Amino acid sequence: MNIPKTSYPRIIIIGGGFAGVALAKKLSKQEVQVVLMDKNNYHTFQPLLYQVSTGGLEPDSIAYPIRKILQTFPNFHFRLANVEKIDTVENKVLTNIGELKFDYLVVASGAVTNYFGNSEIEKNSMAMKTIPESLNLRSLILENFEEALLTSDLNERNTLMNFVIVGGGPTGVELAGALAEIKKGILPKDYPDLDTRMAQIHVIQSGDHILKGMSDKASEKAEDFLEKLGVNIWKNVRVTNYDGKTISTNTDLSFEAATLIWAAGVKGAMIKGLNAKDLITKGERLLVNEFNQVTGFKNIFAIGDIACMVTDDFPIGLPMMAQPAIQQGEQLGDNMLKLIENKPMKPFVYKDKGAMATIGRNKAVVDLPRFRFQGIFAWYVWMFVHLFFLIGFRNRMVVFVNWVYNYVRFDREARLIIRPFKKQLKE
Amino acid sequence: MNIPKTSYPRIIIIGGGFAGVALAKKLSKQEVQVVLMDKNNYHTFQPLLYQVSTGGLEPDSIAYPIRKILQTFPNFHFRLANVEKIDTVENKVLTNIGELKFDYLVVASGAVTNYFGNSEIEKNSMAMKTIPESLNLRSLILENFEEALLTSDLNERNTLMNFVIVGGGPTGVELAGALAEIKKGILPKDYPDLDTRMAQIHVIQSGDHILKGMSDKASEKAEDFLEKLGVNIWKNVRVTNYDGKTISTNTDLSFEAATLIWAAGVKGAMIKGLNAKDLITKGERLLVNEFNQVTGFKNIFAIGDIACMVTDDFPIGLPMMAQPAIQQGEQLGDNMLKLIENKPMKPFVYKDKGAMATIGRNKAVVDLPRFRFQGIFAWYVWMFVHLFFLIGFRNRMVVFVNWVYNYVRFDREARLIIRPFKKQLKE
Repeated sequence: MNIPKTSYPRIIIIGGGFAGVALAKKLSKQEVQVVLMDKNNYHTFQPLLYQVSTGGLEPDSIAYPIRKILQTFPNFHFRLANVEKIDTVENKVLTNIGELKFDYLVVASGAVTNYFGNSEIEKNSMAMKTIPESLNLRSLILENFEEALLTSDLNERNTLMNFVIVGGGPTGVELAGALAEIKKGILPKDYPDLDTRMAQIHVIQSGDHILKGMSDKASEKAEDFLEKLGVNIWKNVRVTNYDGKTISTNTDLSFEAATLIWAAGVKGAMIKGLNAKDLITKGERLLVNEFNQVTGFKNIFAIGDIACMVTDDFPIGLPMMAQPAIQQGEQLGDNMLKLIENKPMKPFVYKDKGAMATIGRNKAVVDLPRFRFQGIFAWYVWMFVHLFFLIGFRNRMVVFVNWVYNYVRFDREARLIIRPFKKQLKE
Repeated sequence: MNIPKTSYPRIIIIGGGFAGVALAKKLSKQEVQVVLMDKNNYHTFQPLLYQVSTGGLEPDSIAYPIRKILQTFPNFHFRLANVEKIDTVENKVLTNIGELKFDYLVVASGAVTNYFGNSEIEKNSMAMKTIPESLNLRSLILENFEEALLTSDLNERNTLMNFVIVGGGPTGVELAGALAEIKKGILPKDYPDLDTRMAQIHVIQSGDHILKGMSDKASEKAEDFLEKLGVNIWKNVRVTNYDGKTISTNTDLSFEAATLIWAAGVKGAMIKGLNAKDLITKGERLLVNEFNQVTGFKNIFAIGDIACMVTDDFPIGLPMMAQPAIQQGEQLGDNMLKLIENKPMKPFVYKDKGAMATIGRNKAVVDLPRFRFQGIFAWYVWMFVHLFFLIGFRNRMVVFVNWVYNYVRFDREARLIIRPFKKQLKE
């Protein structure tokens, strides 16, 4: 890869997500050469993907060009690349566009959907971790209703109008709420020929409550909100298989649905060369010390979802969320400069800023370290925080315009089948 | 197709473009049953597609759900369908989702890109008539620059950075201007490693001036604007072939470019069953009389780009633009009601409201029937008119926000490779 050699130490960052971008910003004005690699040319604001899937936001408003972020950073290089392997002996990364040596490496490759080895579910279900995946889901939801119109077979029609979400975490809960609002506010108007009351939304949760990372109060209230919206919640049920039509579980329950959205788990986006057994923890994450150094290495770091940092409060590692990623990225920036100058690094301490989830119009739950609240105020807080963390003024404005419009008009106008999903399957 | 039979006459409209939507609105409160069919579930605002291709607007802001347009129209049905054939004997349309009888049929199927039979050009070039095509072009432009970074072969690098637009009509001119502004304002910041001054933009025009439907003054000024932006204009040159790398012409000139955008012509989007020789004119359009009736039929109409209405001022048919489509749709609505009530129909008279094209920041040309002007005021008029004709308040707001942002910041932030185009080619 033709990156000029300079006298500055070279830092390669793999991944332009929350962690990678936070780190890049910290290193922006420093005497280091930084090469950021990502398989996309944009940063994705993952917390709002469910709104893309449900037509509330355009995809471009939650994506931001990485080159734009780096424009004003001297000594920065971006490469659109798939990292295929890390060579820890020669200190280089091997990618689809060539290899490159590093002095320091930061793995910030994020997370991918975890199907826990079930290839049948992987093949037949929809995921929602990337923008193309979210757009595929948007297309499929709309295609299902168009198709439901055409059949006179009642069973088939209901199957097409049933949506089963596996996983009661924030993603599953937010998606279920959005689908319920579409069912109530948009479907009857868009499909007057169809009895859309028959459409069903199910959330299946393996544990005994939803939003398990949050407080009991938040979990109970979220469940209450969802039930009021007409969502069916099934607790202590584990999905065992899905053939594209029938969903089997570990209980007597089974569901007929043309769409299963798998939001039941994530795992680290592992890269070859660092996947030695002793490096990896449950959830396929890289075990790191308090300086985010990968076990056994001085110059290789991991931050964000891919990094598993065990603390007293988090014995299986910090949660795979935006906040730990951003905080680790920022602190690693400071620590790397210390390391380069042979000064002692500062151990990372996670500041838990809380968690939140929105269920629908005026309905959200927020757990802050000192306060917990639910309802309309929580909903405003949720929106404010998401707008604040979005990158880019234009994106914020476009998201804001959409939210105001959607709120005032009870609408979601991005219900567009731009690239039909079922056609992609056939091709 | 399961559309309920009512006592109202059934009108099938094929196509939800400018013409079809204008007609639908006119019929919205009348005693007719209307079935609108389109292969997409959205209306496309085609005049702004070039801004999608060049990252200035998100695709969702120039698309509008057809079902949303029809929501408040009683007795309207939408079907997402590909019309495969029209049976003029049995009065029915045959589609991929079944067949349906009509009392009246309106063909408003629009236009497709015309390659004039050159399959090599069709295979290797990019078109810009639909949203997926525009997104493919957006991806390809960005992928080319990412790839140009990687090669040390100067020839290959320049080939990747060369863009040849065939056709000097509004589409070609507007796209060339936008690309020139990207070259000037964005590329040097996004690709500091690349000598983006080497990027070239060519417009090839077979005639002796560009914007040939407009006034001489508009044409000259547009050419002047483009040249000031660094665009190369080649007149009286006809492209004869393109193998994906080398563009041959009918002169000594040839060009090396990884991207050829074909904006050299359109033709009617013909449907089988109406393609008898005597019905069709040059440009593969359906010959219609002054009531938009297809030759030989009382109950089959064509409006918009697919219809060829010959007048004294337009001996080869009205131009394939938004205005004739909208005006024909509106008037046909009135005429159909007259026809149903056995009243005489009113002949269509085209009101030429003028034409306009934007070249770039503060640079547009406008020909109104009484006034002609160019420059910054023309640019404001162009923007106002386009915002006015966009469907939907949300779309207008989002486009407006983008335009203000792009203007103030000299930027275009939707430079995202969401679905890589070259990867699609490989698959």
